[in-house]
Amino acid sequence: MQHILVLGAGLSSSYLIKYLLASAKKESWHITVADQSLAIAESKIKKHPLAKAIALDVSDKEQREAEIKKADIVVSLLPPALHILAAKECIKCKKHLVTASYISDEMKSLHNQALKADVLFLNEIGLDPGIDHLSAMEMIHGIQANGGEIVSFKSYCGGLVAPEYDNNPWNYKFTWNPRNVILAGQATAKYIEDTQVKFIPANRIFTQTEDVNVKGYGKFESYANRDSLGYIEPYGITSARTVLRGTLRRKGYSINWNNLIKLGLTDDTFHIQHSHEMSYRNFLSAFIPGANDANIEEKLSEFLNISKSSKEYKRITWLGLLSADLIGLKNASPAQILQNLLQQKWKLERTDLDMIVMKHEITYKLGTKIKKADSTLVVKGEDAVYTAMAKTVGLPMAIATKLILQGKIKSRGVQMPIHEEFYKPILKELEKFGVKFI
Amino acid sequence: MQHILVLGAGLSSSYLIKYLLASAKKESWHITVADQSLAIAESKIKKHPLAKAIALDVSDKEQREAEIKKADIVVSLLPPALHILAAKECIKCKKHLVTASYISDEMKSLHNQALKADVLFLNEIGLDPGIDHLSAMEMIHGIQANGGEIVSFKSYCGGLVAPEYDNNPWNYKFTWNPRNVILAGQATAKYIEDTQVKFIPANRIFTQTEDVNVKGYGKFESYANRDSLGYIEPYGITSARTVLRGTLRRKGYSINWNNLIKLGLTDDTFHIQHSHEMSYRNFLSAFIPGANDANIEEKLSEFLNISKSSKEYKRITWLGLLSADLIGLKNASPAQILQNLLQQKWKLERTDLDMIVMKHEITYKLGTKIKKADSTLVVKGEDAVYTAMAKTVGLPMAIATKLILQGKIKSRGVQMPIHEEFYKPILKELEKFGVKFI
Repeated sequence: MQHILVLGAGLSSSYLIKYLLASAKKESWHITVADQSLAIAESKIKKHPLAKAIALDVSDKEQREAEIKKADIVVSLLPPALHILAAKECIKCKKHLVTASYISDEMKSLHNQALKADVLFLNEIGLDPGIDHLSAMEMIHGIQANGGEIVSFKSYCGGLVAPEYDNNPWNYKFTWNPRNVILAGQATAKYIEDTQVKFIPANRIFTQTEDVNVKGYGKFESYANRDSLGYIEPYGITSARTVLRGTLRRKGYSINWNNLIKLGLTDDTFHIQHSHEMSYRNFLSAFIPGANDANIEEKLSEFLNISKSSKEYKRITWLGLLSADLIGLKNASPAQILQNLLQQKWKLERTDLDMIVMKHEITYKLGTKIKKADSTLVVKGEDAVYTAMAKTVGLPMAIATKLILQGKIKSRGVQMPIHEEFYKPILKELEKFGVKFI
Repeated sequence: MQHILVLGAGLSSSYLIKYLLASAKKESWHITVADQSLAIAESKIKKHPLAKAIALDVSDKEQREAEIKKADIVVSLLPPALHILAAKECIKCKKHLVTASYISDEMKSLHNQALKADVLFLNEIGLDPGIDHLSAMEMIHGIQANGGEIVSFKSYCGGLVAPEYDNNPWNYKFTWNPRNVILAGQATAKYIEDTQVKFIPANRIFTQTEDVNVKGYGKFESYANRDSLGYIEPYGITSARTVLRGTLRRKGYSINWNNLIKLGLTDDTFHIQHSHEMSYRNFLSAFIPGANDANIEEKLSEFLNISKSSKEYKRITWLGLLSADLIGLKNASPAQILQNLLQQKWKLERTDLDMIVMKHEITYKLGTKIKKADSTLVVKGEDAVYTAMAKTVGLPMAIATKLILQGKIKSRGVQMPIHEEFYKPILKELEKFGVKFI
């Protein structure tokens, strides 16, 4: 009997745990689901005979070590900064580790130790990063195996609300960590365009968008991700003249979000004393030159250079930023105040479904010909717990866990899933769950 | 005989040490000047019989403590983050401390211990902060003593090149730490305008300038400093409807500097691999959408929406940002590359003189009348060592040191110079050196 330890039973764990429980009998697994909250862990295992829920304080070294010692593999859904706690124990106890997070420098530095312990630390095996690697590498290797040379690689991904439930003027609802959405684009974006390295500073990331069409789902736009340059080496596409990764939103989102940035509302670098006594109207007014309670409408329209009857203006008023309601939050940063408001306005309701859209656009040279290849994935959620986001993040982790335990994956050390032994079986099994590229 | 220990003999120490040496005999002082470089320390004391130069590694606790033990007062010209090392020793050995830096939270936390040790830790006693406090408080207390109520307080200060040596299109040369100039305005500015708290996010600090005229010296402009709100309490001007502190530049500087920000050249958050192999032209091109080596002129003009014959465009080309010269710096951030270039272009030459400009504008209510009071300070440097900056930073520290040793200052604990016992004698003596408000 093999033993799986799942650390964290939050939002993203529903599909992962469901898959593991469904396979437990056949694979002869025992699964321990550990969470800070025992109730949450219990709600996920639903009294499955081969599973156990436990309360775990991950900062408790002794308990952490005891649980990891009992496992054959650890699946960490902890906040990214905490993976390293599990990773160090996994080195010591010689256990495999699976995470859906970007490889941190600290994680990277464990590569040789993981090799020596003969274990695999598989990271970036969620959606983005995760399914993007699997599907991109399948395409790239396919093209290269046929003698093609990659000229351009562009990849886009977004977590959105499904069109049927898209009923607000921003065409967006939170389907994932709201804080990441608020703080998006606060670092310089880097990519290559026609052999030129390009930098987009934070102050204009949302002004330089690209249109992206997805057949049957209409128009999207993409803003540049933080670092596209880091993908050139691992993907083996040094021949590419253009390499760009972006985040998808519905058309119009970015320019409106940029208005909030221009105002200063996404600023997370300082805290406003007495913010709890301020109204949203006071708050907004503080960022507009010359504005006060009486003239804020005129000054806002003037500052953003948009008329009060424009869609852009209405998107701001719809958020409630002109309302006299009190903010309530104490000593909050502008970004925290905006997040708190948007969590009410952009809430994915219990009956709403989310939607994941991913698209790769590749141009390649075959002989003297320039050819194009596209690949698109659209996944809709099933309900508020089994969301498309939880499915596309959790299933690749679960399938990878199974393959590692079955001994079908030979890689060791700190890895991301860019090799055939990852993408071939995982993409194949994902198709059974409706996660299929077209 | 009293003993003064001066920590640091760099740029800003020339006037300070000159003043202390000139008073040493009369006051019966012995002065130790300590610097990392013995040669630099020696060059400052010029074999004065009552002074000693020593080499000191400030991170060497033992040596630091030994020297502080021997002193009656410590004057720290160390980088701001290092004052705390001296401060902790000063608590232990019960010595006074003088610095020209803003009071850090760590320094602030020593207040009670300094009171208990019966010593004064006098901070913010340079130019800005320093002379600004002294002169503002003299004005404010004078108005309030006459029954006036402060309605508006605005204060501006800038270190510039003297008009006679102002011969570049930016009308600016470095007279102080270049890095601070490059990174200026990267935090949200906060102030009060007509009773409204106002925030200016980093992305538009240089677009919201005010004109400031200084009689006899022409037109300047001011951009808002980081935090003007923190001055309301200590200055005792809670009645003020407007409180704003700003930095002075010659007119036109800010909008041109904002072009560099918009481009992304002041970004210090990431490093460019292979920056040493890039030309300035490559570097600039990386920040302009669609630009390459061949079309950069057109794309720059397009991106900034300025014609190639405009002054704004010429200010950028004058910097050499379109040149094919190699950057040379390895793995540098955009801000580091820009600083390296500007240190060549904005260099204060050996024969150039610098100039300090400070202006307070106060509006106050006296009975039913609204009155105005202005106060302006202009100081020009004497040469490349005895600059106006070194003078206005060093002299207030030196005079304060004397007054403390003479027992004329009674304050204890962690202080900034906002009380009469500071500003009255210090401003009076500064006048003798030509540092006089009009």
